[in-house]
Amino acid sequence: MRAFYAAETARHDPHHFTLRGRVVANEDRPERADRLLDGLARVGLRAEAPPAAPRTALGEVHSPRYLAFLEGAAGEWAQLEGASAEVIANAQPRLARATYPSGIVGRAGWHLADMASPIGPHTYAAAVRAVDTALAAADAVADGAARAYALCRPPGHHAGRETAGGHCFLNNAAAAAATLARRGARPAILDIDVHHGNGTQSIFYARGDVLTVSVHADPARFYPWFWGHAHEGGVGEGEGANLNLPLPLGTDDAAWLEAIAVALDRVAAFGADTLVLSLGLDVHASDPLGGMSVTTEGIARAGERVATARLPTVVVQEGGYLSDALGDNLAAFLGGLAGGPIPSATP
Amino acid sequence: MRAFYAAETARHDPHHFTLRGRVVANEDRPERADRLLDGLARVGLRAEAPPAAPRTALGEVHSPRYLAFLEGAAGEWAQLEGASAEVIANAQPRLARATYPSGIVGRAGWHLADMASPIGPHTYAAAVRAVDTALAAADAVADGAARAYALCRPPGHHAGRETAGGHCFLNNAAAAAATLARRGARPAILDIDVHHGNGTQSIFYARGDVLTVSVHADPARFYPWFWGHAHEGGVGEGEGANLNLPLPLGTDDAAWLEAIAVALDRVAAFGADTLVLSLGLDVHASDPLGGMSVTTEGIARAGERVATARLPTVVVQEGGYLSDALGDNLAAFLGGLAGGPIPSATP
Repeated sequence: MRAFYAAETARHDPHHFTLRGRVVANEDRPERADRLLDGLARVGLRAEAPPAAPRTALGEVHSPRYLAFLEGAAGEWAQLEGASAEVIANAQPRLARATYPSGIVGRAGWHLADMASPIGPHTYAAAVRAVDTALAAADAVADGAARAYALCRPPGHHAGRETAGGHCFLNNAAAAAATLARRGARPAILDIDVHHGNGTQSIFYARGDVLTVSVHADPARFYPWFWGHAHEGGVGEGEGANLNLPLPLGTDDAAWLEAIAVALDRVAAFGADTLVLSLGLDVHASDPLGGMSVTTEGIARAGERVATARLPTVVVQEGGYLSDALGDNLAAFLGGLAGGPIPSATP
Repeated sequence: MRAFYAAETARHDPHHFTLRGRVVANEDRPERADRLLDGLARVGLRAEAPPAAPRTALGEVHSPRYLAFLEGAAGEWAQLEGASAEVIANAQPRLARATYPSGIVGRAGWHLADMASPIGPHTYAAAVRAVDTALAAADAVADGAARAYALCRPPGHHAGRETAGGHCFLNNAAAAAATLARRGARPAILDIDVHHGNGTQSIFYARGDVLTVSVHADPARFYPWFWGHAHEGGVGEGEGANLNLPLPLGTDDAAWLEAIAVALDRVAAFGADTLVLSLGLDVHASDPLGGMSVTTEGIARAGERVATARLPTVVVQEGGYLSDALGDNLAAFLGGLAGGPIPSATP
């Protein structure tokens, strides 16, 4: 299995985060990548630097004005008198019939969906390199590899067509799936992060050529609150091409693995020939976000179960925050995946 | 002229406010009311306590789930482990097809449109009493008074059908206008706060029986960013019943008074028989928000100009923050208004 990582993404080091009304430390620290690299080493993988990809895939999943905002935001913000070191939203277009604003404060409110995604001077470059990383893994699989792993940081699955949220700015998994679809594959995205993949869902919600499935903690009591319910099934050509499997807070291995099996049945029924797996390790019991109680052994079983789909698989790193188990959990998943059946399909 | 004020609204004492990414002191301090009462005294007015109004008007301008949220939010929030003293949003429904969430964190994100409107333990009661205050003034006018003044705090014009924002929770002016309309009048709301009255506009945007006109700093470079543009004219039955007159930042007396004259022409063309005047004193050059450069003399002229409409008028206090001129500016406006022609119409 090939693995990819862009070392310069470590320069993205966000600080601001609001939890229950208090400003606390942001969880997406550069050290996460170090621990994940340790996990790769434990299964004998060394990450390669991804090449810079053409911007085609970005334009397929994000709007031009959002990309322009992300690229320029830190610089524009720094010119505001008395501004904070990071771009943070303070007003949101919550009433109907909003007009897209020209000023940086207004655009920050338009594009930043929450208080978890501050933009610093290195955020845009890191987010682009994270997309490069996912695309390198997608290209490896499109070129014939059975599996490839992308260590993406910042993660991507909460990023919508023109919104950042939940530590995510550009949607790495969506860019990978869009690229695979453009290259002729019929991809499914399976998201097993503890949080619903609301950005990914929204990007493909009206598309019938990419299946999106998410297994996650019930949004009735967990971020992202507003999406991830079982009734969200897609619209238009995408009707029936989205499946959400919300699980109770505190879900353990058995129920989580059962939901993954249900998800893989849908992937098979869709006739997918390639899998993009959004891998969140924040399902683990030791994760600071505390949404589920999955064990490292359960994560290894999930890897094995995904392998039974016998599909060429692009594994894209999503969440999973600082805990002593982070590297072990990545090693467990990839070890389980690699130990399972070899894919029989090719894209 | 009668004036109304509910002293217990001083218990609403918000702290949290985010300005350009930094948490700073909230501007809507109880001391504002003291200074405005001083201004009333300077023109010989003593504020009466308003009676508790029936909840009819609230239900006409706000949704049941929003009212339930506001009433219970502080108590529910206090039960969250490690929560802040005030209810503050941290995630917003910025993607399409959001489902209304059940948990308090999600509902806070649904209903709080910005970081300027934290809910404390006394916020709901104060907001309800501010509506009582506006309704007492509206009833006085409906009962035959030429003019009445409501010292509302918190202010209201940024509050939409189910969103708080910009220090506002319940829309005092909208409740007054809805009550006047229900009692058979044909009201116009003229909003001369330095900020666009986006909540008021949104509440009446599809109604043709209440005209909404706002004179304010151009939202291209000023809060509320997303609304207040000249192209927003109303929809459906409300088409043509909304007028926005955005002015450049730093606008002085002459241009501001000219825009008010244009606004009053529209009020006359609409055939309004009663005026609800949303009075923001934050147009003054000394206001800490710094949107315009209007003088105390200009504010007096605005009062005189409004009087030339010869309409029974309910003056509802909106913004205007701590400056040495705050009381003088209220006295100037009310003095100008009282010194003008007596209303010829009756509602």
